[in-house]
Amino acid sequence: MRNLFILGILLAASFFSFGQNKDSLWIKKISDEILTNGKAYENLRYLTKQIGPRLAGSAGMVKSEQWGLKMMQESGADSAWMQECMVPHWVRGGKDYAKAGYIPSKPEKKGGPFPAYVYKELDVAALGNSAGTGKSGITEEVVLVHSFDELEKKKDVVKGKIVFYNHKFNDTYINTFHAYRDASPYRGQGPSRASKYGAKAVIIRSMSHAADNNPHTGATRYDSAYAKIPAVALGLRDADWLSEQLQKGNVKVTLKTNGHFLPDTIGHNIIGELRGTEFPDEIITVGGHLDCWDNCEGAHDDGAGCVQTIEILRAFKAVGYKPKRTIRFVLFANEENGLRGGTKYAEEAVKEGKQHILAMESDAGGFTPRSLGFSGSDAQYEKVLSWKKLIAPYGCTEINKGGGGADIGPLNRALKTPTASLNPDSQRYFDIHHARSDVFEAVNKRELELGAVNMAAFIYLVDKYGL
Amino acid sequence: MRNLFILGILLAASFFSFGQNKDSLWIKKISDEILTNGKAYENLRYLTKQIGPRLAGSAGMVKSEQWGLKMMQESGADSAWMQECMVPHWVRGGKDYAKAGYIPSKPEKKGGPFPAYVYKELDVAALGNSAGTGKSGITEEVVLVHSFDELEKKKDVVKGKIVFYNHKFNDTYINTFHAYRDASPYRGQGPSRASKYGAKAVIIRSMSHAADNNPHTGATRYDSAYAKIPAVALGLRDADWLSEQLQKGNVKVTLKTNGHFLPDTIGHNIIGELRGTEFPDEIITVGGHLDCWDNCEGAHDDGAGCVQTIEILRAFKAVGYKPKRTIRFVLFANEENGLRGGTKYAEEAVKEGKQHILAMESDAGGFTPRSLGFSGSDAQYEKVLSWKKLIAPYGCTEINKGGGGADIGPLNRALKTPTASLNPDSQRYFDIHHARSDVFEAVNKRELELGAVNMAAFIYLVDKYGL
Repeated sequence: MRNLFILGILLAASFFSFGQNKDSLWIKKISDEILTNGKAYENLRYLTKQIGPRLAGSAGMVKSEQWGLKMMQESGADSAWMQECMVPHWVRGGKDYAKAGYIPSKPEKKGGPFPAYVYKELDVAALGNSAGTGKSGITEEVVLVHSFDELEKKKDVVKGKIVFYNHKFNDTYINTFHAYRDASPYRGQGPSRASKYGAKAVIIRSMSHAADNNPHTGATRYDSAYAKIPAVALGLRDADWLSEQLQKGNVKVTLKTNGHFLPDTIGHNIIGELRGTEFPDEIITVGGHLDCWDNCEGAHDDGAGCVQTIEILRAFKAVGYKPKRTIRFVLFANEENGLRGGTKYAEEAVKEGKQHILAMESDAGGFTPRSLGFSGSDAQYEKVLSWKKLIAPYGCTEINKGGGGADIGPLNRALKTPTASLNPDSQRYFDIHHARSDVFEAVNKRELELGAVNMAAFIYLVDKYGL
Repeated sequence: MRNLFILGILLAASFFSFGQNKDSLWIKKISDEILTNGKAYENLRYLTKQIGPRLAGSAGMVKSEQWGLKMMQESGADSAWMQECMVPHWVRGGKDYAKAGYIPSKPEKKGGPFPAYVYKELDVAALGNSAGTGKSGITEEVVLVHSFDELEKKKDVVKGKIVFYNHKFNDTYINTFHAYRDASPYRGQGPSRASKYGAKAVIIRSMSHAADNNPHTGATRYDSAYAKIPAVALGLRDADWLSEQLQKGNVKVTLKTNGHFLPDTIGHNIIGELRGTEFPDEIITVGGHLDCWDNCEGAHDDGAGCVQTIEILRAFKAVGYKPKRTIRFVLFANEENGLRGGTKYAEEAVKEGKQHILAMESDAGGFTPRSLGFSGSDAQYEKVLSWKKLIAPYGCTEINKGGGGADIGPLNRALKTPTASLNPDSQRYFDIHHARSDVFEAVNKRELELGAVNMAAFIYLVDKYGL
């Protein structure tokens, strides 16, 4: 009996190691395919250089949707379709403009607030969803604050003025997303919190630690209780300059922005599907978002996630992998300023009534992969963690608790679907995030491909073993 | 007694955690200093943009040595000096040139081997230390091989011809240094192995997987038994083109290179020292190499290692850390084509007779840190490994067996000094290694700084606890 027991253990162990070995061979095969025949980089070149900006409602959105559908078909999806959703249509409406100058205690001459000797143009970008200043612009004195606490202390002096939130990105965080989490409330809530006290406009320091002066846009969210005042992001070097001037004396700034909403329009999630051979009603979703800001090519945010998604589909087909479960490859609409695509996807999933066992997103840039994030039950996390050794050789040396993405959040909330994320190295991301520097040239071919490799390995394992 | 034993364990544990906590606070202090007040990036800008190329024997070498000494002094070294060594003085001697064309089976007209319709200039760089072609150049038929095995099979046809080693960088390796190890023998031994069979010159495919066409130089080593034939590296796109032409028919190539040696000249290792307060005769060395190839700014290779070295010194002083042991910050001479600096440093260390307990080098680029490498006894490795948790939060999540660097190899061989290396992410390194694209703009400020942070943490721990 004891011998049989030992034999049983040996057999189990050998099956296990056979299984692990078979898995590692499949993963290697997928990796080799992506690293030697990968199309992600050339696809990204097309998306960024031939299509370019593709904010919800723009012509670029329409073009990129058509491209995405074609890519899904060409990459071997069993079926591919467009999932319609209404999207907001915010437009910048023209060039953003700002200039700043001292207010001399005694004006040199009558007229305009800017004596020639202290005048400087500032590099600004209106925040996404923000209201414009009107044609004549806004020229007002600037009140410098570094935090909401400081705003509260100065609430009696901001009326009729421009509030400048010069909240610095905290360089001491090693993971730059912590600095972003810390700074982003100024972009989201800053305008309305200043408007509450009568401010006429808001300038925020760009959420970045780049060495350049590019302004970084991104969505703001107005509180309907207060007037929707214009808001711009300011490049970092100019933010330092403006802050210095404000230490020395009073400064006025002229802002001219033209942002406004047009009526909602029609956008689409782009979906490609590989139908499961054993459990076709269990769905695994993997995706990124197709939209990007109007001031950049959206190469890292989130062109990378899109072409990685397509690449996983292509590689699965190329190596002849036939998934047990149904895998949906999704390019989500409107992540940046509405999340209508992710919301629609969850609504349709609820209606369809199938089991969504996992959703994974790549939306942190096409940089070298470092870890995966996973949100699910403890038992599911333990299971996922047991795959670490199979994935680690490809770059994701950790599988951390906590992972998801904006677009798959609604699915998680609707169906409690576990979510996962690719976490690439974060050092360069906020150099280019929502700035004109988020271009194809900032993406490295192998780093992009390795992101797809690590995601593909994880999807393969979830498909094979379930969750 | 048992209670006392438990008390003892509790006390020991609390001392240990107190110690660890104190260490983590010191490391955080050093990290914050580097990430908020760091000078590495601006120092690198100066070294690359104001000084530029600095191959052994060049004017750039002399300028960079003077700069390095000044940096050591300004960064707070107790003492700083130049350690003289003779260095080789190879010069490119002019622009490298190559063109290629079909050899038609029936020439269209008499004269030159290149009918106009099949003529193309190639982007080449003579290999470091290689001989020139002479003014009239070499025009010969090209024999394509992909490996030394293939060369052996074709040994009877290479006489009087140009051998083209089109050995591809293996993209399936995740760590790109494995692909480099695999490909670099063609650069090192390729010329002499072809010369052995009478070849007149050698072309090698650049050791890279960059998406561009820049040729990548690097040192070759002639075997004195055979004629020293000229050798060039070819850009990747041109290498693909040439290979394609050679599948279709015979191709002749004209090469013109001018490389030659001038008499050896005087170079220097630059050394800054913080004197140990408790064990001044135990020496810890940390460094990078100051020289770089003549065709680039040497920003990653190895400007990064130099400015990181200086930054660690600066940060230790800035936070008021007084090392127990003597730390030497070294900018080594002539790593690229002679290793005379590292050799000299070891010779002087032997003469001086002090105990060199560790040497650490950063010479794999200024990219985001991923791991440390360590070579020493098993007991030393276990000790080093116990520090992993203290360093991991800063990026180096692993401490692997095996670590060192070319410049600290001689010290290890002379005194059995344990060696360590910073291992940054390897994906981008061979895109720019020894190519004109190794410029300041390819370095990211935070990635560079984090390299210094991780090295500083390791040096701090070695200083505090010995090895």
